[in-house]
Amino acid sequence: MLYDLEKEDLISIIKNSDYGDLEALAREIRDFLVEKVSKTGGHLASNLGIVETTIALHKVYDTAVDRVIFDVGHQSYVHKIITGRAGAFDTLRKYKGLSGFPKSRESIHDAYDTGHSSTSISAAMGYATARDLRNEDYQVVAVIGDGAMTGGLVYEALNNIGASGTNIKIVLNDNGMSIAKNVGAMSRHLNNLRTSKNYTRMKKNIRGALDNIPVVGQRVSDTISHTKNKIKYSLLDEQGVLFEDLGIKYIGPVDGYNLQALVEAYTAANQYDGPTLVHVITKKGKGYYWSEKYPRKFHGIAPFDADNGNILSSPSGPSYSKVFGDKLVELARTDESIVAISAAMGTATGLGPFYKEFEPRFFDVGIAEAHAVVFAAGMAKAGMTPVVAIYSSFLQRAFDQLIEDICLQNLHVVFAVDRAGLVGADGETHHGMFDLSYLNMIPNMKILCPADGNQLEEMLEYGVHQYDGPIAIRYPRGSSQGNHLRLKPFTGENTVLSVGKDVTILAVGAMLDTGIEAARLLREHGFDAGVTAINVVKPMDAAAVNSETKLVVTLEDNTIIGGFSDEFDRVNREKAFGILNFALPDQFIEQGSIPELREECAMTPEDVVKGVEDYFEKRKA
Amino acid sequence: MLYDLEKEDLISIIKNSDYGDLEALAREIRDFLVEKVSKTGGHLASNLGIVETTIALHKVYDTAVDRVIFDVGHQSYVHKIITGRAGAFDTLRKYKGLSGFPKSRESIHDAYDTGHSSTSISAAMGYATARDLRNEDYQVVAVIGDGAMTGGLVYEALNNIGASGTNIKIVLNDNGMSIAKNVGAMSRHLNNLRTSKNYTRMKKNIRGALDNIPVVGQRVSDTISHTKNKIKYSLLDEQGVLFEDLGIKYIGPVDGYNLQALVEAYTAANQYDGPTLVHVITKKGKGYYWSEKYPRKFHGIAPFDADNGNILSSPSGPSYSKVFGDKLVELARTDESIVAISAAMGTATGLGPFYKEFEPRFFDVGIAEAHAVVFAAGMAKAGMTPVVAIYSSFLQRAFDQLIEDICLQNLHVVFAVDRAGLVGADGETHHGMFDLSYLNMIPNMKILCPADGNQLEEMLEYGVHQYDGPIAIRYPRGSSQGNHLRLKPFTGENTVLSVGKDVTILAVGAMLDTGIEAARLLREHGFDAGVTAINVVKPMDAAAVNSETKLVVTLEDNTIIGGFSDEFDRVNREKAFGILNFALPDQFIEQGSIPELREECAMTPEDVVKGVEDYFEKRKA
Repeated sequence: MLYDLEKEDLISIIKNSDYGDLEALAREIRDFLVEKVSKTGGHLASNLGIVETTIALHKVYDTAVDRVIFDVGHQSYVHKIITGRAGAFDTLRKYKGLSGFPKSRESIHDAYDTGHSSTSISAAMGYATARDLRNEDYQVVAVIGDGAMTGGLVYEALNNIGASGTNIKIVLNDNGMSIAKNVGAMSRHLNNLRTSKNYTRMKKNIRGALDNIPVVGQRVSDTISHTKNKIKYSLLDEQGVLFEDLGIKYIGPVDGYNLQALVEAYTAANQYDGPTLVHVITKKGKGYYWSEKYPRKFHGIAPFDADNGNILSSPSGPSYSKVFGDKLVELARTDESIVAISAAMGTATGLGPFYKEFEPRFFDVGIAEAHAVVFAAGMAKAGMTPVVAIYSSFLQRAFDQLIEDICLQNLHVVFAVDRAGLVGADGETHHGMFDLSYLNMIPNMKILCPADGNQLEEMLEYGVHQYDGPIAIRYPRGSSQGNHLRLKPFTGENTVLSVGKDVTILAVGAMLDTGIEAARLLREHGFDAGVTAINVVKPMDAAAVNSETKLVVTLEDNTIIGGFSDEFDRVNREKAFGILNFALPDQFIEQGSIPELREECAMTPEDVVKGVEDYFEKRKA
Repeated sequence: MLYDLEKEDLISIIKNSDYGDLEALAREIRDFLVEKVSKTGGHLASNLGIVETTIALHKVYDTAVDRVIFDVGHQSYVHKIITGRAGAFDTLRKYKGLSGFPKSRESIHDAYDTGHSSTSISAAMGYATARDLRNEDYQVVAVIGDGAMTGGLVYEALNNIGASGTNIKIVLNDNGMSIAKNVGAMSRHLNNLRTSKNYTRMKKNIRGALDNIPVVGQRVSDTISHTKNKIKYSLLDEQGVLFEDLGIKYIGPVDGYNLQALVEAYTAANQYDGPTLVHVITKKGKGYYWSEKYPRKFHGIAPFDADNGNILSSPSGPSYSKVFGDKLVELARTDESIVAISAAMGTATGLGPFYKEFEPRFFDVGIAEAHAVVFAAGMAKAGMTPVVAIYSSFLQRAFDQLIEDICLQNLHVVFAVDRAGLVGADGETHHGMFDLSYLNMIPNMKILCPADGNQLEEMLEYGVHQYDGPIAIRYPRGSSQGNHLRLKPFTGENTVLSVGKDVTILAVGAMLDTGIEAARLLREHGFDAGVTAINVVKPMDAAAVNSETKLVVTLEDNTIIGGFSDEFDRVNREKAFGILNFALPDQFIEQGSIPELREECAMTPEDVVKGVEDYFEKRKA
């Protein structure tokens, strides 16, 4: 080992070393990443791909002063290693540990917190505009992947910055592999830039040919000259026609593993006082055999055996995503109206098998949730039955379209809201803790919450075949196997498991197991406790609770504000029973395992027991 | 008059008439529009601009079968006249009358309901994809203005459709004047296309020149041939480089007042089995002297005198928007950190004076709310104090960015949420009825609600200077003059006007006058009623109410779900007082005057009195 990554000042080393030594550093960072992430899990492939790109950034920029913004941010591990956080990698994505995303609170070198795609250019423009207004002097750099380029927010920013001419640098980290592949014209455009092998030869030949064009009078000569300029920008010196058309200076493509070329490209970009894009070609998973071979598998991965790339943990039963995807395939076999829509998360949401069997009816629209929802609305108007599978926290990006396009027109679109509730290691930006609230407020929306995989299957069939209108089925990340016995078939209503004269626990969706365990404990403590699975959050069943009960406990893995709790309490205000609400607090929740976070949020069965005991204690007094 | 617009079958007339007669029809439609809209108010200028474009659409397409989608939709009046709805124009934008936007429930000719910008291409792609899957045969046409082209959703759709090759037609209605002007690189690009006067001459000269290029062997010849193709697409036959780069066939520019040229362009577009954009050049306000002269004034206008263009109604005091804009100017004079951000609504949100005095600190980012919010986040991180003014219903489009960029980073950004609550004639898509709910659920967000213009001024100063974090100030459309006496200065708390032993009315923001009048009526009915102005919705003041009171009445112009009511009821569940909630129902609310809609929603002072009487009546029984 040439360097001690955990102890040495890597920033100084990068500034003062020659390219040969930096190549060695890059190798050591790769080894470190594989070793650490194999133990903690995390986003490996994108970080392996961007090692040299990041080292070169630190050679050219001073990230304590210059502001480097990592789009999405899961590719900031190398940056974290370089900026003094290598020693914390054993805690990566763990409770109270190092975040897998940029966090200003961790380091002055993290300029802007990200997590959701396609924000970096807008944020960079904000920084740079403020810098110029304040007459300050630093560079602002957005580091963005080709996948994030499919998000409309990027275009809003490019469109705006192309007109304003604000001086920012954009490093386009193009690994030719968004999480899902080749979904847009932009990716095709980038691919053309990437694969223009004849670029240099053509350049030479055309320039010669144009020089030989006979000049017939001044007017034609002017025209030709104009044409040559146009050609120059569109074909010869740069190929970034689309970017140049938008007013963004284009530099590239640059080999993402040639440190000198990278440093030269960044330096060239700095010469230009305006928006400049450096197009860097990288390879996802670079430098580790298994992640190069299976880059998608190693995008975000659980702990694995570094020797053979095998994932260590054994899953406990099929995930909700898998159950969803398999059931949709079954339904689609006899219903040709079903189409599936994903926003760059086809495999992750379980739609792989659907894609394989029904490719013409599968649509990956890119990281473009708003478009996904309006596209679905158009399909529904035209007689199809769209099923849109999007993570809870990403569906936030289509909030307006859920209101204006889906629910206002009362269209039959089924939303598979995956990763609802706490998600664990991805933390603050990825918890699905708002969906019950943002869906609940929209007129005409129906909201179902399965307690397990069986219910998810039944609800999907119900949503597709028995319901006609906007309907959302929200379910968590992870195993779909409940600890409870099989529930009676879902017929559109909540499921009463047991009746309690003292306490009735209303457990929303997958909180059912917590509710059942709490009821068991309560019975041990002498309470007559019953449990109802809340499978329908909207419309709310005002008569859901047997009013004989003395106390109702609500349990939901959604913020306390605007979800099931708030609405249940208002609707049941006149009832005789007391109410205790257990939900996520009105604050952002950091990363950690689900049990750790449930404990932090006071959502465990023991918390319920304590709350109930306190309640009755107070009443006695 | 050649035609009786209200009685004749204009669709057949258009199909069977020659261009001379259609020009006469266009003139009559213009006269009709000016006459009708001068009485009802409405979106005049955009409709005057698109008369021939729409007539030509009906000559080429059958809108009962082909699906024509009007982006935003306020330019669909001509389409409504042609499709048998001229007779309803006296009720335009009135309660139970003709909507100012496309509505499927009004006519089979309205393919898709719009209201918010930039959705048409996504919806058209949905329609066309469904058509192809179902082996049906019709055309799908999106009619979109150049202003809507600044929205990222359009890019998501273009990017997706450029790759899929789905056969839709896009009519780009380019009047060179988005609601706000020239805000992006795209608008500059369109302008270049528009003004390329040398287009034809250059085309001819270059083609001749290229034909004379000496061919030196096969390899060079191939290269040249490729180059010629590239040139062909980028310079000669079409100029829509940017669209062609994205895989969209470009036809244009076409004179929007030459019916024959329009019909030929649409017909040419139909020959091509893939995404095709017809670039039509129009002029906002065309054909009526005053709207041509003041196109922005006549974008959306109140009833006016058709003879001189003067607006008839006299405003009752300054609007909230004006108060906001003027106060911001005052604050900005002594605070250089203040910057103002608008999403294509600078004048409408009252930022005109700010723009005039502080142009370098004013930013109109186009119809790009998500970008506006992230741009503000970047500025806040870099030391500025951004004030973002966006209508309540449009801010829905930045919901995810409010969560992830603003509140998660706990940034000091002030949101001026204009047009909150019921807005009147624009109806369903424009009521700001969700903001209290979607803001309330976000951790770290503070929400203020002024009861009048004075409070808005005080709150803006408080938000800018006394508070450090995300803060939203939400206020309605219209006059900022309350019917109440001047309230004591706002210091960050709710305002108790009077105490009531029987009833305490909590009136959120501008509902204060309703609350005061209800209290007066209640006193007439023998109740001891008091009023508190709820100026701070979040964080909720759990001790807001004097618990001596028997009944609390909440009044808010926001949906009942997830706003002040739900949260107040939960927080005060253990209190002895009863609660009655008056809020907007969980349904979409159509157009109408505010008094009409308040009555429909049972939100009048009389409704409060009736509710209170019923409550106590029931208690007695």
